[in-house]
Amino acid sequence: MANERKEQLKNQGRLLIRCEDQPGIVSAVSTFLHKNNANIIESNQYSSDPENGTFFLRIEFHLDDLNNKRQELEKQFSEIATTYSMDYRFTYGAERKKAAIFVSQEPHALVELLWEWQNGDLPMDIEVVISNHEIAREMVEALGIPYHYIPANKDIRKEVEAEQVRLMEQYDIDILILARYMQILTPEFVERFENRIINIHHSFLPAFIGARPYERAFHRGVKLIGATSHYVTNDLDEGPIIEQDIERVDHRNSIAELKKIGQQIERRVLARAVKWHLEDRVIVEGNKTIVFQ
Amino acid sequence: MANERKEQLKNQGRLLIRCEDQPGIVSAVSTFLHKNNANIIESNQYSSDPENGTFFLRIEFHLDDLNNKRQELEKQFSEIATTYSMDYRFTYGAERKKAAIFVSQEPHALVELLWEWQNGDLPMDIEVVISNHEIAREMVEALGIPYHYIPANKDIRKEVEAEQVRLMEQYDIDILILARYMQILTPEFVERFENRIINIHHSFLPAFIGARPYERAFHRGVKLIGATSHYVTNDLDEGPIIEQDIERVDHRNSIAELKKIGQQIERRVLARAVKWHLEDRVIVEGNKTIVFQ
Amino acid sequence: MANERKEQLKNQGRLLIRCEDQPGIVSAVSTFLHKNNANIIESNQYSSDPENGTFFLRIEFHLDDLNNKRQELEKQFSEIATTYSMDYRFTYGAERKKAAIFVSQEPHALVELLWEWQNGDLPMDIEVVISNHEIAREMVEALGIPYHYIPANKDIRKEVEAEQVRLMEQYDIDILILARYMQILTPEFVERFENRIINIHHSFLPAFIGARPYERAFHRGVKLIGATSHYVTNDLDEGPIIEQDIERVDHRNSIAELKKIGQQIERRVLARAVKWHLEDRVIVEGNKTIVFQ
Amino acid sequence: MANERKEQLKNQGRLLIRCEDQPGIVSAVSTFLHKNNANIIESNQYSSDPENGTFFLRIEFHLDDLNNKRQELEKQFSEIATTYSMDYRFTYGAERKKAAIFVSQEPHALVELLWEWQNGDLPMDIEVVISNHEIAREMVEALGIPYHYIPANKDIRKEVEAEQVRLMEQYDIDILILARYMQILTPEFVERFENRIINIHHSFLPAFIGARPYERAFHRGVKLIGATSHYVTNDLDEGPIIEQDIERVDHRNSIAELKKIGQQIERRVLARAVKWHLEDRVIVEGNKTIVFQ
Repeated sequence: MANERKEQLKNQGRLLIRCEDQPGIVSAVSTFLHKNNANIIESNQYSSDPENGTFFLRIEFHLDDLNNKRQELEKQFSEIATTYSMDYRFTYGAERKKAAIFVSQEPHALVELLWEWQNGDLPMDIEVVISNHEIAREMVEALGIPYHYIPANKDIRKEVEAEQVRLMEQYDIDILILARYMQILTPEFVERFENRIINIHHSFLPAFIGARPYERAFHRGVKLIGATSHYVTNDLDEGPIIEQDIERVDHRNSIAELKKIGQQIERRVLARAVKWHLEDRVIVEGNKTIVFQ
Repeated sequence: MANERKEQLKNQGRLLIRCEDQPGIVSAVSTFLHKNNANIIESNQYSSDPENGTFFLRIEFHLDDLNNKRQELEKQFSEIATTYSMDYRFTYGAERKKAAIFVSQEPHALVELLWEWQNGDLPMDIEVVISNHEIAREMVEALGIPYHYIPANKDIRKEVEAEQVRLMEQYDIDILILARYMQILTPEFVERFENRIINIHHSFLPAFIGARPYERAFHRGVKLIGATSHYVTNDLDEGPIIEQDIERVDHRNSIAELKKIGQQIERRVLARAVKWHLEDRVIVEGNKTIVFQ
Repeated sequence: MANERKEQLKNQGRLLIRCEDQPGIVSAVSTFLHKNNANIIESNQYSSDPENGTFFLRIEFHLDDLNNKRQELEKQFSEIATTYSMDYRFTYGAERKKAAIFVSQEPHALVELLWEWQNGDLPMDIEVVISNHEIAREMVEALGIPYHYIPANKDIRKEVEAEQVRLMEQYDIDILILARYMQILTPEFVERFENRIINIHHSFLPAFIGARPYERAFHRGVKLIGATSHYVTNDLDEGPIIEQDIERVDHRNSIAELKKIGQQIERRVLARAVKWHLEDRVIVEGNKTIVFQ
Repeated sequence: MANERKEQLKNQGRLLIRCEDQPGIVSAVSTFLHKNNANIIESNQYSSDPENGTFFLRIEFHLDDLNNKRQELEKQFSEIATTYSMDYRFTYGAERKKAAIFVSQEPHALVELLWEWQNGDLPMDIEVVISNHEIAREMVEALGIPYHYIPANKDIRKEVEAEQVRLMEQYDIDILILARYMQILTPEFVERFENRIINIHHSFLPAFIGARPYERAFHRGVKLIGATSHYVTNDLDEGPIIEQDIERVDHRNSIAELKKIGQQIERRVLARAVKWHLEDRVIVEGNKTIVFQ
C-alpha cells in the first residue's frame, strides 16, 4: 500500500501561489502547465475579496519524468511569477517531509499518528520522537524510530530547547507535531519554525484557552466538547486554526469521561491537520488558514 | 394532531425532586406512586456525586382522572418530602405553560417557534410577542397572537422593562423566550424571572461571548460555528447552558454566510431547549443544567 | 436583502462544461475569459478518472455589462467548445429559474422552501404550487403564489399529469420540486423533465426504498435516521442523489417521533439540494451527481 | 488507571430485568435494594408500550463487600422475580467478561480494540485472537495474547468452526468480536453463541447488505457512508443493531478513500458497541436493541 502510493507520488508536483488578485492568473498558470505537458490533477483557488483581494491557488499536477524536468519547470515559471508578483512554491510528491513528534504523558495522539503513518496515510518520514517522559519509548523504538528523552520544566527551558533545536537540525526536520506536548515553547523557538509547528489543543478554541480545558468545560456545563489543531504562534492557543471537531456530552459525563471522549476527538483532528499540512493543502493567511480539501 | 396530544397529556403528571443523595429515595417515591395507582411512564435520575451528592429525580406518570386526584396526591407526598428534606414540584400535562416571545429584527428563531407550535410540538400557549421592531407583527397577528411593539434602547431601559413586566403579569407568563431579542435586561428584570428566561446566543459559548459573534468567528478563522441556548442570568452569556449545536464552515464562508448558517443552528437549538423546558426536563443546578432527555 | 442579492447577480455568469479529459482545457477556457475581461469568481473542476476520464468544469465569473455582452461571449466560446468537443452551457445570474412546488398532505418541506425563498436565499421565482390537497392553500396564496388543487390517485394519473404538464408549460417551469408529493409520476412525465425534478425521500437511501420508511426504520431498529434529496428517474428512489443528512435516534423514539425528527432533516436536506441546483452546482453524471460546493 | 477502575468495579453489581409491564415493579426492586443496603448508582428503564408492553430495567448498584453478599442477594431476589414473572440476571463488576477477537486481513478494528483495552476502557479479558491470516500475529503476541491462525474457506467451514468452538470452550469465552472477520458463520455456530457475537459491518445498514459495500456506495453516489455494529444472526447483516455512525463524503472520493474513511467509522462504532455490551447496557428484544446509555 505505502509503496504503491510512493510510486503514484513520484511524478506528482504541487504549485502553490499567493498574489494580488488580478485578471489572467489562472490563464497564465494553466497555459504554462499545458505547454510543459503537465496534467492538472486537482486545482483549488480562493480570493480573499472579489475586489483588491489576495488570490491563492493550489494546483496538483502530473508530469512524466518529473524529477528530471523540475529545474527547467521552475526556471520557466519564475518569469510568470515575476510578471504577477507571485509568492509561490513548488513541492514534489517524491520528497516526503521530515517530521518530529513531541509528546508528554498522554500517548493517544502519538499512537494515532503512528498508526496512520504505518498504513501509508501520512506521507512523511518520522525522523524522531522527543518527549519529557519515557512512557512512549517502547512503542516508538519498536517501529525503528529514534526516541529522545529530554526532561523539561520551565526553569531549564532554554537548555531543553537548545537540545531540541540541535535535533531538529540533525534530522533536518520540516514539520514539528506537538501530539499533546505539555510544555510552553519560547518565542525564539516558535519563530524558528514559523507555520511548521502543529499543535492539538484539547478544547474547541477559542473556548477554554489555556490549561485544564476539560475541567473548565465540565464546570461551565457545555453540551459539546471539542479539539482544535492549529499552528503554534507566540499567543497561546491563538494560532491559525487548521481543523476542529466536537462530540456531544451531557450532565452525566464526569471530567474523566470528558477527557476520554476528548482524546478520541484529539486523535482524529490532529491526524487530519497533519495530513493536510503534508499534502500542502493548508495556507496560512494572517491568523487564519485556507484549507484546500 | 395537537388535540390528540392534549388528550394524551390530560392524565399525565410529572414529579421533580431534588434532595441530598441518601438510601431509599427511589423506593419511597416509586412505592408512593404505586400505592396511588399511578403508572410510571418515564423515570430519570442523576446524582451529582456517588458520595454526599445531590440527587435529582424526574418521573412522568399516568393516573386516571388525575385532575380530581391531584390535591390528595400532593398532600400525601408532602410527608415523604419532609422525611427526605426534598425540594420538589408536581406539574401537570393539562396545564400548558404560558409563554411570551421577545424578538428584535431577525425573525428566524420566532418563525421556527411559531411553526413548531402550530404543529403541536411545543406544548405552550403563546400569550404575547414583544418586539422593539414592527417586522414580525403581521405573521404573529395572523396566528391570533397579540403583538406588542415596545421601542427600546439603553436610555429608556427602565420604562421599557416596566411595560414588559406589566405585560408579563397581565398575561400571567411562565416562560420568556428571547428569540434573538437584542436588548440587555436589567438585573431586576432577570431576577424576577429566574430560570424562566431562555435565550439563544449566536455562538458556541463560551467562545465569542458578547456582541457580533459571527464577525469574530470569521476573523478567528474557526472551522465550526455554533449556537447556544441558555437561561439568562446577570452575567452576560454565562447562564446555565441548555443546548448547543454546530455546523462545519470553512475559509470560503463570508460573514454573511456564517450568519445564514448560524441562523439554521439557532432555530433548531432554541426550539429544542424550549421544548425540553416545557416538558420540565431541564433542571438548573448551580450554573449547569441537568437535561433529562 | 433579496434586492441586494439580485443586484450582485446581475453581472454574474456561469459556464458549465463536460468533455473528455484532455490537456489544455483549463488553459483555453481561462484564457478565453481573461481576453473577454471576465473575472473568475469561483472555479471548480473534477475529472472522473486521471486517465481517459470525463472532465467537468464550473466557472462563475463577473463581467461588467454582462447582459449586452452575452451573445458575443457565447458566439466566441462556441469555437473552443468545438475544438474540445465540449458539452457546455452558460447560465446567468440575472435569469432566475422558474419553479413549481408539488406538495401533498405534509407541508413542512414546503414551509421551509417558502421561508428560505422569502429570505432571498433561494434564487428562484416560485410560479406555482400544485397539490392534491387543500391544506397549504392559505399560506401559499398569502405570498401571492398561485395554488392549484389537482386531486390525484393512480386511476386518474394520466389526466392529472396532463393538467400538470399544461401548468408547467403555462408557467414556463424550469424546476419541479417535490416537497413531499406522495404520488408516483409516469415515465412520460419524468422524461419530459429529466434532471429537473428534485424529490425529498424520507430515508437515508438506499436504505428503505419505497413506502413508509420511518415505520420500517423503527422496526429495523436503526440508530440513525436520514433523508435524501435526489433527481427523480423512473426507478423509484434510485435517481442521482444530491444531498443526504441524518440524526441520531434510539430505542425510546416512537414511529411518530421518528417522523417528527425526520421532518427536520427533510426540511434542510431539500432546501440545500434546491439551492445548489439553482446555483448550477449540481451536475448529473450517469446515476451520480457532482456537487461543486 | 486500569487498576483503579478494577477497584471501583469490585463492589459494583448490575441487575437486568425483563418482564410484562405492570404496576409496582420499580417500587419492589428499589425497595429490595434499599433493604439490602445497596446504593443505586444508575437506573434506566424502558417500556415497549404504555399498555401491555414489556418492561426493561437496568440498575447499577454499589454494595460494600458485595462478593460475600452475592449469594444471599440473589436468593432473596428470586422471590420478587417469581412474583412478577421476571426474566432477570445479576452481573458483577468483579467478573470481567472473557473475549475472543476474530479478524481477517484488515487489522484496523482490532488495533482500536487493543488500544482501548490497554487504556482500561474496555473491561474485558482478551483471551485469544483468531484469524485466517497471519497479519496481526506480532502485535497481538506482543501484548501477551495467544494468536491462533486457522486458515478458512467455505469448503472447510465445518472443520474450521469445530476448531474455533474448541478454543471458545478452552478459553471459556463470553463474547466473540468479529473485528472485520470476513468468513460466513454457520447457523450452528451462530446459535451456540446467540446474542454474544458482535460484528462490525462496513455500511450504514440496511443499506448495502452483503459484500463490497464501499464499492456499491461509490457507484450509488451516496453523500454519507457509515458503519454498523450488530449482533450476528443467521440472516446476513440483519441482526439487532447496537450502534451506527456516518461521515460525509462527496463525488471526489475514490473507492479507496471511502474505505479509508469507513475504517475510521468502523473503529469507533465497534469499540462503542463492545463497551456497551461489556457494561451490560445492550438488551436484545426481538430484532432490535435497547441500549441503556
